[in-house]
Parts: sequence; structure tokens; C-alpha cells
Amino acid sequence: MGRTSRTRLSPAERRSQLLDLGVTLLAHRSLDELSIEVLAEEAGISRGLLYHYFGSKHAFHEAVVRRAADDLIAQTAPPSSGDPLERLATSMAAYLAYVEASYEGYLSLVKGAQGGNETLRAIYDEARAALTDRIFVEDQGGDGGALLPDTPATRLLVRGWSAMAEDVVLSWVAAPTGVTRDELLHLLATSLPALVAASTPTRQ
Amino acid sequence: MGRTSRTRLSPAERRSQLLDLGVTLLAHRSLDELSIEVLAEEAGISRGLLYHYFGSKHAFHEAVVRRAADDLIAQTAPPSSGDPLERLATSMAAYLAYVEASYEGYLSLVKGAQGGNETLRAIYDEARAALTDRIFVEDQGGDGGALLPDTPATRLLVRGWSAMAEDVVLSWVAAPTGVTRDELLHLLATSLPALVAASTPTRQ
Repeated sequence: MGRTSRTRLSPAERRSQLLDLGVTLLAHRSLDELSIEVLAEEAGISRGLLYHYFGSKHAFHEAVVRRAADDLIAQTAPPSSGDPLERLATSMAAYLAYVEASYEGYLSLVKGAQGGNETLRAIYDEARAALTDRIFVEDQGGDGGALLPDTPATRLLVRGWSAMAEDVVLSWVAAPTGVTRDELLHLLATSLPALVAASTPTRQ
Repeated sequence: MGRTSRTRLSPAERRSQLLDLGVTLLAHRSLDELSIEVLAEEAGISRGLLYHYFGSKHAFHEAVVRRAADDLIAQTAPPSSGDPLERLATSMAAYLAYVEASYEGYLSLVKGAQGGNETLRAIYDEARAALTDRIFVEDQGGDGGALLPDTPATRLLVRGWSAMAEDVVLSWVAAPTGVTRDELLHLLATSLPALVAASTPTRQ
């Protein structure tokens, strides 16, 4: 099927197929290890053709990381309706599954973004904003109402919580000793509601 | 006092004094902007003497960042006794004050560590371990008992919480709009206990 369909693909489709392959390769490689040469070998086409599709190694990396970020956002999309806490739990379980499946590439995105690579930073920030913004946007339309009000304080809280979730998941995938998967999922699902409840200032 | 005492300083004391100056300069500069030349000018001594004390720019940076991390650990030490929650609140207020006073240098340590600079990573990890480990060690001896049990799950939780606290404080210092200092301090002081309470799996 591959050979037959390959000849019929438009350049845009072929480019998209190559990006999918790049994302797959990134799952078990850092970005530094994902070269045009590696992709050419895996795809069975020439380096020259890849440069034709992507222009430069930098543009190739940017396109692959954008595709990976889009995949992350799509795969962790919560159900469009239902109880906000259950939707959050479903989304966080998908996030854990994504990081487990794409650990090397995800870690290299995080490291690159935090280390000052501006391209990676922009993609990372967009992905993180998409992940956290939808907690405010989509929950407004959920059957169970909003999980939390949209204020500067809750925005700061959700941002911090997402840093925590990322740190916890990356730590656990790297060294899961002593913490079960269920314990981790419980932590991921209950931490945000607990933080929201605690952050409401008590008046004395 | 400066000139008289300067001549009496031992090389170790003089080196220590220069490190203090380096840390002060790092408060409003990134590490990249803190050169031997800048320190020489501020200290009023020759570059050659500074190379004598520190050997290389790399060693100078390492020594300054270690000193800064030691300062952070010392300044955020909680009171040695008292209610665990109040001790934690005191420590977090000191952490906020530290980041406010040393924003540029602290941010460049975090970025450098997360971006893959191995020297900065080691110092950062040591500092972070010191900050989080004492939650387990010192609270055992507090009047109010332990804040949380020492298990792999709570270690993972505290690690994630410290990533959240760092993210929240750095975000707020960079852009405090809409969130008062009291709201932030409340969040920092109550988040860990709330997470601990929520992470205890409920049996149904």
C-alpha cells in the first residue's frame, strides 16, 4: 500500500507524512539526535528531497516539534462534556500516556524551551497555553460548570500547577520506583481542585 | 574600613569577599552578563588577580552560583521550631523575597540548569534538594510534628510542588498584575498541605 499511495500524495501530504515520521522518531530521540540524515534513512528518500521539503535542519526541527505539540494538544483534549473533575482526570491520564510514549522528544522540547532556544520556547509556550487555557475555556461549557473562575490569581495557579504536573510526570517516567501508576494518576487528577480550594483566601 | 581591612584579608577571605560581590552583581544580571571584567571593574582590582583567585571564567561562574545557592538555602531556612505550617509559610515568604531581590541571577540559574548546563544543573539540583529535603528532615523535629510522611509518593509530590512554587514566583515577579502579594503568599503557604491532603488515596 505504501508504494502505491506514495506516488499519489501531493507535496503537502508527503510533507505531512514525513512530519509524522519525524514525530515518531522523536519519541525515542532528543531533538539533537534527530537529523535530516536519520529521517532520510528511515523514510528511504534522499537528503536532497528532505531539504526540498523543509529548507533547513532548523526549519525541519521546528516543523517536527510543532507537529509533536499539536499531537500533544489533540491527544490530551478532555471530553467535550461531563463532570469537570472527570474531564480533567481523563486529560491528565492522556498526558501521562503521551509523555510515556514520547519521553525523549518531550524532554528535549522542555529542556530546549527552558534553556533559552527561542523557537522551542515559542512552541512550548503555545502548547502549554493551549493546555491550560482550555481549563478556563472548555470548562465553562461543561455540564458540570466551571472548575475554577478565570482570574489573574487562578491563571497563575493553573500555570504553576501545569509546571508541577510536568515535573511530576517527567520524574515518574524517568524513575517510577515506589509510586504506583494509580497513585500518580490520583495525584494528577486531584491536585488542581485541591489547589483551587486552598488558594481561596479565608477571611478571618 | 574597606582599605584598611582589605590588606589584612587572607586569600580565602578575599576570595570570599569577591564571591559576595559576584552574587550582588548577579542579582541584576544574567550569568552570561557577569564577566571577570565586570567583577574586576566593580572590585577595583585587575583581571589578572581575579584569574589568580578563580582560575577561569567557568570556575568563577561556578563559584558565584554555588555561593548564590548557599545564600538561597540559608535565607529560606525555616525557624527551627514551631508549627510546621507556620514554618513553611515563613520559609516561602523568604523564598519570594530572595527571588525578588535576585531575579536576574536566579532566573539565569534556573534557565541554565534546565537547558542542560551540567555545572549549573548540579548546583541547582543540590539547592533544590536542600530546600525540599529539609521539609522531611527538619519538620520531624518541629514542635508540631511532621508536615508529611517521607515516602516515594510524598517525595515526588514535594518535588513537583517546588517546581510549581518556582514557576509561580518567577511568573509573579516578572508580571505581578492582578495578584496581590498576600494572595501569592497565601498560595505558596497553603499549596503543599492541600496537595498532601489531596494525594492521600481515598478508599471507596
